[in-house]
Amino acid sequence: MKNLLIAQSGGPTAAINATLVGIYQAAHTSSRVDRIYGARNGIQGVLEESFVDLKELIKDTQDMELLCQTPAAALGSCRFKLENMENNDKQYEMLIGIFRRYQIAYFIYIGGNDSMDTVHKLSEYCKKKNIQDICIVGAPKTIDNDLVEIDHCPGFGSAAKYIATTFAELERDTQVYTMDSVFIVEVMGRNAGWLTAASALARLNGSRGPSLIYLCERTFHPEQFIADVESRLKEHTPVIVAVSEGIMDSQGRYYAELGQSKGTDSFGHKYMAGAGHMLENLVRQRIGCKVRSVELSLMQRSASHLASATDINEARLLGIKALQCAVDGLTGHMASLQRTASDYYEIEITSVPVAKVANFEKKVPLDYINPAGNDVTDEMIAYLKPLIQGEVRIQYKNGIPKHLVLGCI
Amino acid sequence: MKNLLIAQSGGPTAAINATLVGIYQAAHTSSRVDRIYGARNGIQGVLEESFVDLKELIKDTQDMELLCQTPAAALGSCRFKLENMENNDKQYEMLIGIFRRYQIAYFIYIGGNDSMDTVHKLSEYCKKKNIQDICIVGAPKTIDNDLVEIDHCPGFGSAAKYIATTFAELERDTQVYTMDSVFIVEVMGRNAGWLTAASALARLNGSRGPSLIYLCERTFHPEQFIADVESRLKEHTPVIVAVSEGIMDSQGRYYAELGQSKGTDSFGHKYMAGAGHMLENLVRQRIGCKVRSVELSLMQRSASHLASATDINEARLLGIKALQCAVDGLTGHMASLQRTASDYYEIEITSVPVAKVANFEKKVPLDYINPAGNDVTDEMIAYLKPLIQGEVRIQYKNGIPKHLVLGCI
Repeated sequence: MKNLLIAQSGGPTAAINATLVGIYQAAHTSSRVDRIYGARNGIQGVLEESFVDLKELIKDTQDMELLCQTPAAALGSCRFKLENMENNDKQYEMLIGIFRRYQIAYFIYIGGNDSMDTVHKLSEYCKKKNIQDICIVGAPKTIDNDLVEIDHCPGFGSAAKYIATTFAELERDTQVYTMDSVFIVEVMGRNAGWLTAASALARLNGSRGPSLIYLCERTFHPEQFIADVESRLKEHTPVIVAVSEGIMDSQGRYYAELGQSKGTDSFGHKYMAGAGHMLENLVRQRIGCKVRSVELSLMQRSASHLASATDINEARLLGIKALQCAVDGLTGHMASLQRTASDYYEIEITSVPVAKVANFEKKVPLDYINPAGNDVTDEMIAYLKPLIQGEVRIQYKNGIPKHLVLGCI
Repeated sequence: MKNLLIAQSGGPTAAINATLVGIYQAAHTSSRVDRIYGARNGIQGVLEESFVDLKELIKDTQDMELLCQTPAAALGSCRFKLENMENNDKQYEMLIGIFRRYQIAYFIYIGGNDSMDTVHKLSEYCKKKNIQDICIVGAPKTIDNDLVEIDHCPGFGSAAKYIATTFAELERDTQVYTMDSVFIVEVMGRNAGWLTAASALARLNGSRGPSLIYLCERTFHPEQFIADVESRLKEHTPVIVAVSEGIMDSQGRYYAELGQSKGTDSFGHKYMAGAGHMLENLVRQRIGCKVRSVELSLMQRSASHLASATDINEARLLGIKALQCAVDGLTGHMASLQRTASDYYEIEITSVPVAKVANFEKKVPLDYINPAGNDVTDEMIAYLKPLIQGEVRIQYKNGIPKHLVLGCI
C-alpha cells in the first residue's frame, strides 16, 4: 500500500481547498496512490492521528466543485512549528512511526511559510535517517503573497480581487455627499504590502481608486500623511486611503501596537486599535473633517463568492503538481509557478526545493512603490492585474453560496 | 412641456440606482413625459438648480443594465430635511419657482424616511396652494428596512444577501482552529435590527450560523451576554455573535456612545468604539478566550457584486410604479409593495399615501425575536428568506465589476 496524507495549515484563504481538490483529483486517478487520508488541523492532527478517509468525504466531481468554492481550510488548520531535530528527535520519530502505521508513502502539506518550514524539516529528517520511501512535498498558499521562489501565491489573487472590487464599491458609496471626507481602509499584511497594493486595481475600470496608498514596506510618517491628505482634499473628496495593518514608525514599531490605549471603556476595559483606527483619530484631530475607518478584516481572505478564476484554477494546478512531485519522489520540494512572458500572462507550473522557501519572506520591491511612498507604480499594476482575472461560476442555493463542509473539523 | 425631475437621498444602497433606472425607463417610453432631469445631491441640488439631463448620461439599455449593478446613489445624496411650511414658506416657494422654470410636472424622490418627509411636506404645500400641475411622488429605499406601509424596502434584500453570505464565509474561516474562540460581528442598524437578523440566513444551507443574535429592539444585558457566550462555548467553538450597532442598555443609551474612551492612543487622541468592539473587550476581560470583532461597515450596503436579483428587480419595478403614480397625478404617494400570499412568495406593487410613511419607523416585531432575546424565530426566517433569492449576472471588466458613473457628482 502506498497511501497519501494531505494536511492544511496557516491562515485561511479562498483557494486552499482548490489545492486540496487538485491533489485529490490527481491522486484519485493515479495508479501509484492507494488510500487518500486527510489530517485534521494540520501537523498537529498528524501527531494526534486525527485522520479522515477523503474518498468517503468527497464523493464525486460535484463535491470537488463545491469544495473549490468553499473558503478556508476544509481539513482545519493549526499554528504549529516542528521543533528542530536537534532539540526534539522524538517528534520526528513519532511522525515517521505514524506514517509507517498508516503506510503513508506521500505527505503533502498545503500552507505558507511555517508549513514550508515543516516540509523542510521533515524531509531533512528523512534524508538524515535514510528514509527513502516517504516523500514529503509542499503546496503553497497564503493571501499575503509573501512566499519566495514563486511568482505569486494561491489565495492572493482572490483576496486581491475582493479588495479591488470593494475599493471600487466603497468609492461609489463614499462619493454621494459633497462635504470633505476621508475614508481610511485597513488591509491585511503585517510585513508585506501586496494586499494593500491591490487596492490600486480599483482604478482599472476608470475609477479614481484610493487617493493614497501606504504599504508597510515604507516607514510611515504621520506628518507626511497629514500633509498628503490635506493636499488631496484640495483636489477632490472623498479621499480614500489604503493602509497596511503593519505600517511602522521610524523605530520599527507597529502603529497597531502603539495603539494600545491606557484608557478604558464603560465596562472598564482597555482598548486596542488597529492602524486604520489610529489614522482615523489622527485625521479627526488634525484636520477635523468627516472621517471614518473601515477594516476589510476576515472578509478579504474568505470571500470565496468573489474568487478569482485565475487564482482558483492555478491553486488546483499546484495541487496536481504537488501530487506529481510526491509520486516522482521529489521530497523536500514545493509546487510552484513562474511567469514565462512579460508582455502577456503565461505561467509555468514548476517545483522548487523547499529549503529555498521556508522562513524567507517576499516583501514588495521598492520600485513597486512610488518615490513619495504614498502609491504604487505601473510595474505593480502590471504584476497584479492578471491575478484577479476571471470569475468563478459560484453555485448558490437558497440565495447564498453552497459550501462543502467535510464535517471533520 | 411636462418634464420629470428625479433625485436620490439618504444612505447608499445596492438597489437605489435600479429604482432610478425603473423611473427612467418608464419615463423614456411614456408619451406624457418630455425631458428627464436628475438633480445632483437630492433636494439640496434641486434648491441649487444643479440639474443634469439624464438622456445625455444614460445612452442605451446597456447603460441601464450597468447602472443597475452600480452601488450607491449615482446622482449623489444629501441629508437635508425641508423646514416646516409654517417656519419657512420661502424654501417651498423657491422650489416651486424652480419647478416652474424647468417646467417640472413630476418630481420623484428616491429615499428613506427623511426623503418621504420631504415628499410629504412638498405635496402638502402644493395642495395648500392649490398647485395641481406638479405631482410629487416618493420611491422607497433603505437598507435598514424600517419604512412602514411596505412589506420590505429595496436595498435591504441585497444587504441581507451580503450579510448571510458573509456570515457563512466567516463561519468557514473561523472554525479552522480548535481552541475556544468568539467572533463578534457588528451589523448596521441603530434603531431596527432587520439587517442583524439576516445573519440567521447563513443557516439556510446547513451551516450553524451565528450562535447568538442580539437585535437593538431588545435591551442588551452584558451579564446575560457573558452567560450566553459561556454556555455556547461549552457546546461548540467558534461562537459567532451577530450584534446590531444600535444595542442599548436598560436606560436606553447606545453602547456605541458609552464606548467613548477617556484614554488616548500614542498620538494623544481619544478612542471611539462601536458596539462590536465593546463586546470584544467584554469577552476578553471576562472570559479570556481568543476573541475578535469584525464590522461589516460600508461593505454591507455597497456590495452590488452580490446583489439579490429579487431586490434589484423589485427596486426597478418600484421605479416604474413611481413614474406611473406621477403621470396619474397621485401626488403625495409612495410606490410600495405588499406580499399577497403566505405559503409562497408573491408581491403586488401598490402605492400608499406618503403621510402614512414619513417619520414612522418599522422595528422588528417582538415575536420575530426568541424569548431569550438572543436569536430570531422561524417567522423571521420565513419573512427574510425570499428577499435574498436570485443572483444578478454582474458584468465584469479587468477582473472587477463594471460601474456606470454618471459623472455628475
